[in-house]
Amino acid sequence: MNRFSSAISGNAAVIARILANDHVADIVEALNNEPRKLAADLLAQAPFERTVEIFDQPELDDASELISALPRNRAGKLLAAMSADRAADVLRDLDEAARLELLHAMPPALRHSLLSILGYEEGSAGSIMTTEYVSVPPDWTVARTLDYIRQVERTRETVYAIYVVDPDTQHLLRAFGLRKLITSNPQALISTIAADTAPVSVPPLMDVEQVAHLIRKYDLLAVPVVEDDKILGIVTVDDVLDTMIEENTEDAHRFGGMEALDEPYMKMGFFSMIGKRGGWLSALFLSEMLTASVMQHYEVELEKAIVLTLFIPLIMSSGGNSGSQATSLVIRAMALRELSLADWWRVALRELPSGVVLGVMLGLIGMGRIVLWQYLGLYDYGPYWHLIAATVGVALVGIVTFGSLSGSMLPFALKRIGFDPASASAPFVATLVDVTGLAIYFTVAALILSGTIL
Amino acid sequence: MNRFSSAISGNAAVIARILANDHVADIVEALNNEPRKLAADLLAQAPFERTVEIFDQPELDDASELISALPRNRAGKLLAAMSADRAADVLRDLDEAARLELLHAMPPALRHSLLSILGYEEGSAGSIMTTEYVSVPPDWTVARTLDYIRQVERTRETVYAIYVVDPDTQHLLRAFGLRKLITSNPQALISTIAADTAPVSVPPLMDVEQVAHLIRKYDLLAVPVVEDDKILGIVTVDDVLDTMIEENTEDAHRFGGMEALDEPYMKMGFFSMIGKRGGWLSALFLSEMLTASVMQHYEVELEKAIVLTLFIPLIMSSGGNSGSQATSLVIRAMALRELSLADWWRVALRELPSGVVLGVMLGLIGMGRIVLWQYLGLYDYGPYWHLIAATVGVALVGIVTFGSLSGSMLPFALKRIGFDPASASAPFVATLVDVTGLAIYFTVAALILSGTIL
Repeated sequence: MNRFSSAISGNAAVIARILANDHVADIVEALNNEPRKLAADLLAQAPFERTVEIFDQPELDDASELISALPRNRAGKLLAAMSADRAADVLRDLDEAARLELLHAMPPALRHSLLSILGYEEGSAGSIMTTEYVSVPPDWTVARTLDYIRQVERTRETVYAIYVVDPDTQHLLRAFGLRKLITSNPQALISTIAADTAPVSVPPLMDVEQVAHLIRKYDLLAVPVVEDDKILGIVTVDDVLDTMIEENTEDAHRFGGMEALDEPYMKMGFFSMIGKRGGWLSALFLSEMLTASVMQHYEVELEKAIVLTLFIPLIMSSGGNSGSQATSLVIRAMALRELSLADWWRVALRELPSGVVLGVMLGLIGMGRIVLWQYLGLYDYGPYWHLIAATVGVALVGIVTFGSLSGSMLPFALKRIGFDPASASAPFVATLVDVTGLAIYFTVAALILSGTIL
Repeated sequence: MNRFSSAISGNAAVIARILANDHVADIVEALNNEPRKLAADLLAQAPFERTVEIFDQPELDDASELISALPRNRAGKLLAAMSADRAADVLRDLDEAARLELLHAMPPALRHSLLSILGYEEGSAGSIMTTEYVSVPPDWTVARTLDYIRQVERTRETVYAIYVVDPDTQHLLRAFGLRKLITSNPQALISTIAADTAPVSVPPLMDVEQVAHLIRKYDLLAVPVVEDDKILGIVTVDDVLDTMIEENTEDAHRFGGMEALDEPYMKMGFFSMIGKRGGWLSALFLSEMLTASVMQHYEVELEKAIVLTLFIPLIMSSGGNSGSQATSLVIRAMALRELSLADWWRVALRELPSGVVLGVMLGLIGMGRIVLWQYLGLYDYGPYWHLIAATVGVALVGIVTFGSLSGSMLPFALKRIGFDPASASAPFVATLVDVTGLAIYFTVAALILSGTIL
């Protein structure tokens, strides 16, 4: 739906009406569908207040590109009027020269608070916090605080969470909700209405996922970011929602066996996408080449018993599937903080019997298939068909157990050596299990079939 | 950390102190770690108000089980005092007899609103809405509305979103934030301060994921659930956060190739877990059996050219990996509403060239490996080694292209026939691609090698 392009063939009044009346989220959606040049032109002409609102939406695509297309003067004013966390987001994606130029045209106080946000690495609480929160000293009354909120309301991202700060030390003392404020006696002192305990807070370097976990656990609308007892900013629930959706997309892409895309699928350039996929695909391919080496190693057995090759795809995929299940379970439980690094042995003790039971299930089905085909005359597995059935059954128990166990331990191992456990992907596990799976299969075959067909 | 169990060996005063002073979220976490019997006993003795708060946390495990362990009288009072959406959640998990008994002991108005929530299927906006919201007629003043909020504040889940409802028709007219209320002139009429347009609302049957999408898009703290222009309840951002985390867990488990677990990994019973995993594992195993049939079909070729078997695992896994990438991309883009059913051909037109390019990449690596091993004398692929290299290369292009294309189309196909596109899992795609992959490999081999080793 290219609403602006169609309006342009009409007239400027239509565009003005859309910009004036539509919900800002809908304008952003419409802008995202327009060519970049047209979007930049529209933003250069739109009323200033409206443009601020539009740039304040994290859903606006290419915000940095669009803001650099504007005259430097207007760009600087927009950044100063935007919420601090969004302005930092936009600045972060600019090239360094443009970023510094814009920063140095700003009032010193604003520059300082933007630089403090930009100083934290992406994905940390500090990098998504906003410095525009409401703080009051403990000796104010409820009435005075309400008056103050009325004055500053327009420049604060949220007024629903209010922080009590010691005016001398700047230490964060307490936190309470606007709800509490409007139901309290107007003459009461702030120090008497806030809860008795220090508020839940997070350090600036805490991972956003962990911040989301705390916000959810304590049902907060915002959480203060605190260092040396001083409040640096707050992270609001809507920023967490946005970040969580991004993190989930990253995890889903990585579990699918690729680098996470940082743009929508249909908007991503063809060759950047090939890059994100091709790297992992080639790495997995190179590792999987070990299967060819394993097969070469067992070449003599293969030539003697060609019937063994028939079940290779079936057996290998079962190991990969059980591994993929175990990995997805453990990655997710880790993301939800149900499991920590220290729980690895508990998980191992659970996956070992699970793997055996699931392996026996598949083993029985596999043997059943061989017996059935043999009896029905659909295929002749030769005089030792019952030994072949046994080989397939026993190998499946071994491989599914190995798959479950290694699939569940892989995220722990990655975490232990400092990687994100979510880097463990279904294809990664499958590759890990394939090589070992072949070795297990041929070893079982050698044990059961030696002296007959091997 | 079994805080209560350890406290019990101490004395009752310690438990009373924990219950009185700790944050309710921490108490819930501690209770979740205790044996069920002990948790039920503690909840039977805890102060009533505190118990209500505890049951109001969606993080409390086995809430239904715990409430049925309480005397019926106390259970009924607790449910009446809890927020309506949580009470409905707890009732939903009870067996029918207990549910009806508790419902009929309640005041009729409450019973009616709980039944209206229980009437919507799980995962819909109606099923997670709360009926405890603030609504006022348009002819009230700001001051009167604030007074009203002060009175009802304790019985409303949120007072940050306020709804303007026509007192005669019960139609939802407008919505505004508490923020707006406290910054407006106390004598102004509500009808003059609320925005000019009807609020964003959702129908009761809308999927929760879609509700989350709207809340995020319009940066809302709550969204009203509306039917026939009448407001039935509201869905708050924290309920959406909880539901989104659940949905993400479900999607992650399903993408891993299993039924979603509805309990934390370490708490799930061993055999229920085997059930959730074994079903899909067996279904995939049965489908994967087709690979054995394909292999049997090409038995003659296999016997003539045993060298072909060496590359089967390598080639098959490449198809599965590229398919898994494409599926995770499309599932995620669908969840984020970047792609709809009508976009299938756009995706196909993108995946076809992607698959070819990625296939050529892997094909070149694969051929390189054969040439290298042959030259270095690591393995002798026979006099026709260059034709074998060509077979592997060409087959990889075909299989990776087929993998990318079918992996990306699978979620569309599932959606088209009414399933959740997220039911497409990495193992599902791998299985789909394995059978076709083998057929492609042997067909390419027949074309290239016929007259030489075949």
